[in-house]
Amino acid sequence: MKSRSAKHLHTNSDVGVYDCEVRLRFRLIEEKQALGDRDHLLEMLLDAFVCGADDYLEPVEVEVDAQEISEVDASPEMRRQLIRLRNSSDLA
Amino acid sequence: MKSRSAKHLHTNSDVGVYDCEVRLRFRLIEEKQALGDRDHLLEMLLDAFVCGADDYLEPVEVEVDAQEISEVDASPEMRRQLIRLRNSSDLA
Repeated sequence: MKSRSAKHLHTNSDVGVYDCEVRLRFRLIEEKQALGDRDHLLEMLLDAFVCGADDYLEPVEVEVDAQEISEVDASPEMRRQLIRLRNSSDLA
Repeated sequence: MKSRSAKHLHTNSDVGVYDCEVRLRFRLIEEKQALGDRDHLLEMLLDAFVCGADDYLEPVEVEVDAQEISEVDASPEMRRQLIRLRNSSDLA
């Protein structure tokens, strides 16, 4: 698991909260055993998709959307994080 | 872009073709400028999601499914790839 840091954000106070949706459909050649591990299925499929189309993977449908939402609709944790980002930006 | 190789597959001939679907909904704190780049939106959102939940990202809904399909429903390219995999496995 990589870890995000505030570094790439806090130099710019113009941040927002986004409702994001990603829908991927694709066909994949894989070992039957590998896909039987349901706990790691999401991780495995995302890894495969990020590798891109090749002889083992054919994209069927890809939808992606990101809509900014009002901050008042964000969770208290996200609102606090926005305030922290803006404060650190003001100090920079 | 990483590149898959046949290496992890060709030692095992028990491979199949899968119809895969991944649907992700999540909220994300991000710079407005970054999400304006529609060409890289999918890549950016997948990167963010793979990083995992933290103060910048909250999963809302995650669905994942992989169903094996009959090889006769696979594309000619995938069927050829399956034959290659099985042949290389027989030789190993």
